[in-house]
Amino acid sequence: MNSATGAKAKIGLIGLGLMGRPMGLNLLKAGHALTVWNRTPARAEALVAAGASQAASPRAAAEACDVLITIVSDPSALQEVLWGKDGAMSGLRRGGIYIDSSTVSPALARKISAACAERGARFLDAPVTGGTWGAEKGELVFMVGGEAATLAEAEAVLGVLGKKWFHLGPNGAGQTIKLAMNLILALQVDALAEALALVGGAGIAGEKLVEVLQSSMARAAVLDVKAPLLLKGEYPPSFPLRLMHKDLGLALDLANQIGVPLPATAAAREIYSSVKGAAKEDLDYAAVMKFWKG
Amino acid sequence: MNSATGAKAKIGLIGLGLMGRPMGLNLLKAGHALTVWNRTPARAEALVAAGASQAASPRAAAEACDVLITIVSDPSALQEVLWGKDGAMSGLRRGGIYIDSSTVSPALARKISAACAERGARFLDAPVTGGTWGAEKGELVFMVGGEAATLAEAEAVLGVLGKKWFHLGPNGAGQTIKLAMNLILALQVDALAEALALVGGAGIAGEKLVEVLQSSMARAAVLDVKAPLLLKGEYPPSFPLRLMHKDLGLALDLANQIGVPLPATAAAREIYSSVKGAAKEDLDYAAVMKFWKG
Amino acid sequence: MNSATGAKAKIGLIGLGLMGRPMGLNLLKAGHALTVWNRTPARAEALVAAGASQAASPRAAAEACDVLITIVSDPSALQEVLWGKDGAMSGLRRGGIYIDSSTVSPALARKISAACAERGARFLDAPVTGGTWGAEKGELVFMVGGEAATLAEAEAVLGVLGKKWFHLGPNGAGQTIKLAMNLILALQVDALAEALALVGGAGIAGEKLVEVLQSSMARAAVLDVKAPLLLKGEYPPSFPLRLMHKDLGLALDLANQIGVPLPATAAAREIYSSVKGAAKEDLDYAAVMKFWKG
Amino acid sequence: MNSATGAKAKIGLIGLGLMGRPMGLNLLKAGHALTVWNRTPARAEALVAAGASQAASPRAAAEACDVLITIVSDPSALQEVLWGKDGAMSGLRRGGIYIDSSTVSPALARKISAACAERGARFLDAPVTGGTWGAEKGELVFMVGGEAATLAEAEAVLGVLGKKWFHLGPNGAGQTIKLAMNLILALQVDALAEALALVGGAGIAGEKLVEVLQSSMARAAVLDVKAPLLLKGEYPPSFPLRLMHKDLGLALDLANQIGVPLPATAAAREIYSSVKGAAKEDLDYAAVMKFWKG
Repeated sequence: MNSATGAKAKIGLIGLGLMGRPMGLNLLKAGHALTVWNRTPARAEALVAAGASQAASPRAAAEACDVLITIVSDPSALQEVLWGKDGAMSGLRRGGIYIDSSTVSPALARKISAACAERGARFLDAPVTGGTWGAEKGELVFMVGGEAATLAEAEAVLGVLGKKWFHLGPNGAGQTIKLAMNLILALQVDALAEALALVGGAGIAGEKLVEVLQSSMARAAVLDVKAPLLLKGEYPPSFPLRLMHKDLGLALDLANQIGVPLPATAAAREIYSSVKGAAKEDLDYAAVMKFWKG
Repeated sequence: MNSATGAKAKIGLIGLGLMGRPMGLNLLKAGHALTVWNRTPARAEALVAAGASQAASPRAAAEACDVLITIVSDPSALQEVLWGKDGAMSGLRRGGIYIDSSTVSPALARKISAACAERGARFLDAPVTGGTWGAEKGELVFMVGGEAATLAEAEAVLGVLGKKWFHLGPNGAGQTIKLAMNLILALQVDALAEALALVGGAGIAGEKLVEVLQSSMARAAVLDVKAPLLLKGEYPPSFPLRLMHKDLGLALDLANQIGVPLPATAAAREIYSSVKGAAKEDLDYAAVMKFWKG
Repeated sequence: MNSATGAKAKIGLIGLGLMGRPMGLNLLKAGHALTVWNRTPARAEALVAAGASQAASPRAAAEACDVLITIVSDPSALQEVLWGKDGAMSGLRRGGIYIDSSTVSPALARKISAACAERGARFLDAPVTGGTWGAEKGELVFMVGGEAATLAEAEAVLGVLGKKWFHLGPNGAGQTIKLAMNLILALQVDALAEALALVGGAGIAGEKLVEVLQSSMARAAVLDVKAPLLLKGEYPPSFPLRLMHKDLGLALDLANQIGVPLPATAAAREIYSSVKGAAKEDLDYAAVMKFWKG
Repeated sequence: MNSATGAKAKIGLIGLGLMGRPMGLNLLKAGHALTVWNRTPARAEALVAAGASQAASPRAAAEACDVLITIVSDPSALQEVLWGKDGAMSGLRRGGIYIDSSTVSPALARKISAACAERGARFLDAPVTGGTWGAEKGELVFMVGGEAATLAEAEAVLGVLGKKWFHLGPNGAGQTIKLAMNLILALQVDALAEALALVGGAGIAGEKLVEVLQSSMARAAVLDVKAPLLLKGEYPPSFPLRLMHKDLGLALDLANQIGVPLPATAAAREIYSSVKGAAKEDLDYAAVMKFWKG
């Protein structure tokens, strides 16, 4: 098969965390040849058991594939994977496609794009929403920046991992939209937390607020999911607070580079920071409530 | 009829603005005897034409009814109506019910409650959501503070105006929940505005963000309604920004009295204030976007 | 003597707190006839022992004097003193001068001004800086709104209490400048607290920061006084946090009425609110540090 | 001479901006042998005319000296100078001293420290206050992180450039204190701007506020210098707003890494960002006032 992304493409996958592992399983189920790499090699076991090859380095993973996918936790992890010792960038094939589904800065996405272009590879920044559940079910939503033709070629692979993708502009556009989306989510949950803190401080059960909320224009998908956590005060990590806090930082970095003030986002980021600073364990970002009920 | 609130009760209605007029029409349609008063008397014309009596003063309106309803724009308007010259409080009947559907402070609701008790009247603070549309269709939602028995008696009247009511606690609880609800709405719309400002500043069309939003966990009822306004930059007043700004002020007043910090609410209030200060006309609160695209 | 404010004027003083008592003693020392009133009568003892008459009501205090001075803790206390039962406003003499040195809203100052004009009395809003120390030494600074001629006549009395006064404009101007001044003080001390929190969180002793501060352009009169308190974590009330918090609220109320956004003031107010909410005792506003080191 | 830093040491200086040039002239006047490098070579002319040698690369400058000093505008400029093509780090001598007087993150200072240690060189992070004026007069104040013994050896050089230095802890401590200092300055000037916006919005001349300020506890060294600029609305760059904005970003980055919330700093940073975004020219950070009076 000539196409880099045909139904039986050789795919590399770097980053085998809560998102990467189910994505890898779906790629294997769809019949793709999969080569994986993870900083902590043990995380690859389930995928190797399911048929994946384990590469010795990011570079080796990149060399073994037509389509490379990365999904790691933050910009520094991505930079290490790409440009650290035996980094993936040095293994990318001419004509190959590299899809990064991490959430990083648009500036980093553009830097990667330029580095790929130098090697004759094509790049899509394609961060996702949908969480672990979406990764498992193959129902992720991709926010894509890059060339339309590259996206068209990548759709066969993306279609295994998700049901929807949005082409949002040149490289960096996917990350920009992702940061904007997470900004909205972070403020929605913080708004509920502030409202619950107010109501609780005034002596009224938070359940009353949530009950009214669900009959009102203030209802929101994320609040349906998170409100029960805030009421119970239990925050098992689905989307970890440390990552939401990081994404707010990336959104504010971008905004400050371009001189767009984001006053409520900035205020909320400090609250998430405070909770992160005091946390002893990994918590969902709904734990923003702990700013008031630590 | 013995009940103060039977199907054919005598009802007083003070405040004939965008909410009060359709509420009055629904009360008349349901067969209630309605006496109305408004600071600007001409606003009563449509209701008088439909069969309402026009009182000469708030006091006269209160004297003429078993159930008094007020819905005015802010705390000072309400205080003037109740305790100003020929104020309604001095006309309330022993055994009557007074329902305030304005949005004011919980402290004012409790002060009204105490004044009613001195006169042998019963009070419900019952602010509403649903907007003009809900007022017209009789689909308002009431957030009620006060005695359960009083609410039970008032349900025949509330049922003409709305489909749902929530009993949230003693007097003041209705206002507290209403302020918390509006805080959430104000932050949701501000969050969308901040996200659009970021995306636009980065050179991406806001429509792209809204398209992704609607496929994501960040979707929210209020954003479905307001996003088109923000994209068009047209803000015909549905819920006026000046009233949302006032409600944020009331929420912050309450929070500061009880020592509950609301950082993002406080940040958002200043943005709404800035837009209010620069506005030449009455705008919907979606006009918070004008902070960035004035 | 014809002048209302000659060296031996009859003076009324309402509000015998930490500021009012030393002010009263200075007035007595200067030979003025002094009539005092306080909500808690026992607070008048020292002044009565020093020669003051104790009035039975605010009204009686106002009736007994040519120049009435009030200095109470907040707007509601002032309204009660002026318009409550046997309130001072009803006792003001035609041609008399009324000086309010409380910190209240400019709007309330203008309302008082109008009420005085109706009675033929003249009004100065004249809040002070200088604290207890300035009150004791007769070194207060007055920020004055009102007619220049009234101020000229009042100078003989002000000169007993302070060394400086500034005529800032019509009634309300004194309060406006006072609120702006306290806004600056509150942010200066909060800035030091944020800087100490940052430095401490990074593992460096706060003393290092304060040492450098004192050799730098960041040095400030209020920081010289407050920095030792923040370093020790001891906050005996000099200017109580609850009053600074109230003044920030008044500044924000004014700003929001006129549509001037004050983002950092709003952020700082929430911090002061949080500390106020958690405080078990009366603390100086330097206790804003407790937001980080509770 | 054995000492690396004796009165006639060989000194390298990289970064010949508003600060670096006068520092270089003072080093030449004191009789030191000076080798300089700047990204824009023409900036070296005055120093070469005064006797300095111009190096062909940062590496060459480092190789030519016993004590290397860098003072560039931001972290990325510093990283380029140190680790870019022919970077200075590769030229540092075993036993030499490297002093960085740029303002960068404590994390970068520690990274530099580790890199120096690998080469057998010693590092001081030594950001300065005092501005262009202090650089010209040799009255800079150094905030130093690093080994006390290294500082002792460097004092002969520092003493040419400044009158004071503070040893604040291990590497990174100088930068931490510098960021905390600038946070205080930025908030002081923003506080004055907010106060002037409030006063002006209420119809009172800003000069009135500044006059009272100077007789009050709110007086501050930086406000003496900046208040006239805010009143005139003219902001010739002394300390450029873009650099203050960058330093607020560094302070917030540090705070968010360690989980210390800085609410007012975060609010102020967005204001500076807004002004930076709208600015057509280089302005002093006093131009924060343009947020209100653009």
